[in-house]
Amino acid sequence: MKRAVVLLSGGLDSTTCLAIARDAGYECHCLSFDYGQRQRHELERAAHIAQTLGAASHRIVRIDLGSVGGSALTDPSIDVPKDRPVEAGSSTPPITYVPARNTVFLAVALGLAEVLGAEAIYVGVNARDFSGYPDCRPEFLEAFSALAKVATVAGQEGKAPRIEAPLLHLGKAEIIRWGLRLGVDYSITLSCYDPIGDAACGRCDACLLRKKGFREAGVADPTRYA
Amino acid sequence: MKRAVVLLSGGLDSTTCLAIARDAGYECHCLSFDYGQRQRHELERAAHIAQTLGAASHRIVRIDLGSVGGSALTDPSIDVPKDRPVEAGSSTPPITYVPARNTVFLAVALGLAEVLGAEAIYVGVNARDFSGYPDCRPEFLEAFSALAKVATVAGQEGKAPRIEAPLLHLGKAEIIRWGLRLGVDYSITLSCYDPIGDAACGRCDACLLRKKGFREAGVADPTRYA
Repeated sequence: MKRAVVLLSGGLDSTTCLAIARDAGYECHCLSFDYGQRQRHELERAAHIAQTLGAASHRIVRIDLGSVGGSALTDPSIDVPKDRPVEAGSSTPPITYVPARNTVFLAVALGLAEVLGAEAIYVGVNARDFSGYPDCRPEFLEAFSALAKVATVAGQEGKAPRIEAPLLHLGKAEIIRWGLRLGVDYSITLSCYDPIGDAACGRCDACLLRKKGFREAGVADPTRYA
Repeated sequence: MKRAVVLLSGGLDSTTCLAIARDAGYECHCLSFDYGQRQRHELERAAHIAQTLGAASHRIVRIDLGSVGGSALTDPSIDVPKDRPVEAGSSTPPITYVPARNTVFLAVALGLAEVLGAEAIYVGVNARDFSGYPDCRPEFLEAFSALAKVATVAGQEGKAPRIEAPLLHLGKAEIIRWGLRLGVDYSITLSCYDPIGDAACGRCDACLLRKKGFREAGVADPTRYA
């Protein structure tokens, strides 16, 4: 059975990505990161989601991005912005941007793909919402794909994993509709940047975008808000 | 003062790289990784070297590459090869190859460069010895440089850090001669894959290459072997 590494944060996008990879016939090996994020609750969700969606394996790799700093998600002294208008296509990334995070995550995924002989790496990045994140753009994914072709032994042998970003050009409502068609139960996912206990704050950018997505999809929002 | 991030393992190559970056007028911010390597003693050496060579800062970032596996350096059940002929230009990497390691290290360095506003990232990769490592080749560094241009906000603004690999095409003896001209004391560096306590094993590939380098440079080898 062909294998894929799936980056799984436990949020709406990456969970949909896992369902898509499974639907495409892949044996899915999920990869999550304990990187010092304030929303560490997402890791328990990720483990539950991997199991629920029948992943072949799930790894949580610890990496201390807090020592690199520069983000509200890894620095407890910086507040997560709340109640701001959700703007698509902003040109500067918000303070929740973690410098080079997707580069780091994809790099580890590339190593795991090499070890497992995986043909694909699935990543739930989305260029339409939050386009202020430089590492969510098509140019970034193209450059990483080119890097994958030369960075590993598999790449040298012409067997570099493809970087699959099926959500890249979709809006949240389209993502939700696709996931629902594949049977995803979104009540087990957590998108919030600043959860209160196990519940979503309902006010950070991620929560506001998610709410808007369910609204636009015309679907009841199953999220538990604090 | 212009800033550089310097990847520092505590070995001969990366220490020379730090001396070169300093000599080029950079304020040097060193970055080491505690990635589950068996040669963890190198981290103490790295800290000592950063201080001795006047680095502005030194971070040790923990990342658990052991959970990715596939290498003798991170899997205690795989032996480090000993006493084998040192072959330059081998086409398949040895079992000490850690899949995607340089991609991961450079990715974190890229994040740190973004936070510090660094103009350059120095990395001590060397394509001449050990060319079986795919991520020590010029093609790899070129692809990573291209990625850096689109992966971060600095990149988007045309201020991506340059990836500097001054040792790329040099042999060990040339590296040693350059470092000595810059005043590097190689007795404080540790290149060994499988040190015994604080002393080098003298028999792994890294030790054999290092010994050969001092021999060819016509310089006494200051390494303490077990």
